[in-house]
Amino acid sequence: MSSLDPPMMNAPAIDSRQLRHALGAFATGVTIVTTRDTAGHDIGLTVNSFSSVSLDPPMVLWSLSRHAHSLAAFLSVEHFAVHILAADQEPLSNLFAQTGADKFAGLSPGRGHGGVPLLDGCSARFECRTAFRHAGGDHEIFVGEVITFEHFDRAPLVFQRGRYAFAVPKPEAASNGAAGEAESNFSREFLGYLLGRAQHQLMRHLMREFDLRGLTEEQYFVLSVLGAEDNRTLRELDAAAALAGRSVPPEQVRALAQRGFVMIDASPGLEARARLTELGLRTDIELVAIAKAAEADVQNNLDYAEAQTLKALLKRLVGEREPHGPPN
Amino acid sequence: MSSLDPPMMNAPAIDSRQLRHALGAFATGVTIVTTRDTAGHDIGLTVNSFSSVSLDPPMVLWSLSRHAHSLAAFLSVEHFAVHILAADQEPLSNLFAQTGADKFAGLSPGRGHGGVPLLDGCSARFECRTAFRHAGGDHEIFVGEVITFEHFDRAPLVFQRGRYAFAVPKPEAASNGAAGEAESNFSREFLGYLLGRAQHQLMRHLMREFDLRGLTEEQYFVLSVLGAEDNRTLRELDAAAALAGRSVPPEQVRALAQRGFVMIDASPGLEARARLTELGLRTDIELVAIAKAAEADVQNNLDYAEAQTLKALLKRLVGEREPHGPPN
Repeated sequence: MSSLDPPMMNAPAIDSRQLRHALGAFATGVTIVTTRDTAGHDIGLTVNSFSSVSLDPPMVLWSLSRHAHSLAAFLSVEHFAVHILAADQEPLSNLFAQTGADKFAGLSPGRGHGGVPLLDGCSARFECRTAFRHAGGDHEIFVGEVITFEHFDRAPLVFQRGRYAFAVPKPEAASNGAAGEAESNFSREFLGYLLGRAQHQLMRHLMREFDLRGLTEEQYFVLSVLGAEDNRTLRELDAAAALAGRSVPPEQVRALAQRGFVMIDASPGLEARARLTELGLRTDIELVAIAKAAEADVQNNLDYAEAQTLKALLKRLVGEREPHGPPN
Repeated sequence: MSSLDPPMMNAPAIDSRQLRHALGAFATGVTIVTTRDTAGHDIGLTVNSFSSVSLDPPMVLWSLSRHAHSLAAFLSVEHFAVHILAADQEPLSNLFAQTGADKFAGLSPGRGHGGVPLLDGCSARFECRTAFRHAGGDHEIFVGEVITFEHFDRAPLVFQRGRYAFAVPKPEAASNGAAGEAESNFSREFLGYLLGRAQHQLMRHLMREFDLRGLTEEQYFVLSVLGAEDNRTLRELDAAAALAGRSVPPEQVRALAQRGFVMIDASPGLEARARLTELGLRTDIELVAIAKAAEADVQNNLDYAEAQTLKALLKRLVGEREPHGPPN
């Protein structure tokens, strides 16, 4: 093959949609690039074609469609700011991805070099001066020299395969340890063991509260299931408990009724149903608050993105299907 | 502020190391860019400054340091290939990040346009022809027109904050549901519930096997702890179980001894210690195999990266510190 091929007659035509999918395999952060146009209007848009280029001089780049409304503004001014969004800034990302929206309403941005609007709550922010503009097909490539920057300790938002994502640090390779360690340590690596330990750390906070109220774990489960959806048959309660490997025999529910937490409605010919009393409802609300505090306490070792990720993965593990909704 | 500032006398000098940290907040995929130089040598290096630029014509870009050994090669040839690495290709990423290594030894790459080496196992691959080369400070920006590409269904590798990471799809925002749903569904969102369900799904596979062997869950725990490190005192066994909210009373261990799974060494004046017999060791090995199968079965709903991430998060949740080892 020569290094100067003739026009590729045999190259398959590029399908834009498939190309976009393939490019989506490359994870990116999400940025909002802002500027102020010559008329003094604030401009901003969501961009994931950001890339670091040079450290000395400090330079970054991003690309803007030649069809973008904001192209004229970025061509006519010198300064822009790049905000690397934090994990909880998905709504801001969606807002700035729209066209025509009044994106800055209610944001009261700060002001940087050239009067450029600066947004808060991001993971890092770079104020730049356009150093070069380069040709890039249907996009214009802006290379900016970094004038000043700020770095905040916030977990960043990730975009990948057409969806928002969290980045979770990869565990160290097992090969870092002694040979065969992964094998002999299986009992400590076993998912069942890890789940059991995590469950125990979380529940021991709660068990104390159950004890104080004279409730069994199963009875707490009944209260919280009824708190989510009241008026269930005893069979439904037992079925809900079975999902988590527990059983709620009717006696447990009857014991709750005797103590005034639930009322059992046993009309002749119909299945018995349980409803929360006012005491039951109040107790459920209290225990939910305590459970949330216990959860927050246990999740102390994780950041926001990681805690969300853990729950999402556990749901997927137990087979709960998540609605798929790619933002693009 | 004018749009043409004078040279910034008050701008703080840019600290390269801090700038690099701040830029690290922007997550990226990891690519290997390859080419063949005019002498016919294969060239390749790890690059995360990749970015998609244009769909029509299809164009991507990446940057290469002006000090890179491989700069001359990329300047003198027309074609290159970009491989978006998959989650399990961290070793390949590390290999191609080195200088001077014989990177292609043992890889037997395929050949693309211009004889460019093509690597396997990646998440997506783009064969390109250099369309433009642009100035970018201490880096050269290569803009390539995509001639052909392939897309494989593999979870991609992510690099962020100086470490390899997995990207895990963000759960859908709770606001997508009915108002107040997040609150009323707390019982189903509660981490304790999710952990319990996951634990149950995993353990019910194993419980059957315990039953068949006449073992309690605690006794299985003893066998697996001794399988990892034999010859422990009964107190140590109980302490290990306590981490997971269980207890192993001495009678349970003695029952294992009576059935020939362990030997108890009770020298006078010393604490009693348990060791696996040959039967105990064989049983442990069998049960580990079954546990691994159960784990793989339950993890069916997750991909490789997600399963690794789940374990890493659970370890962090229970407070196990992970060794920090940024690759850079």
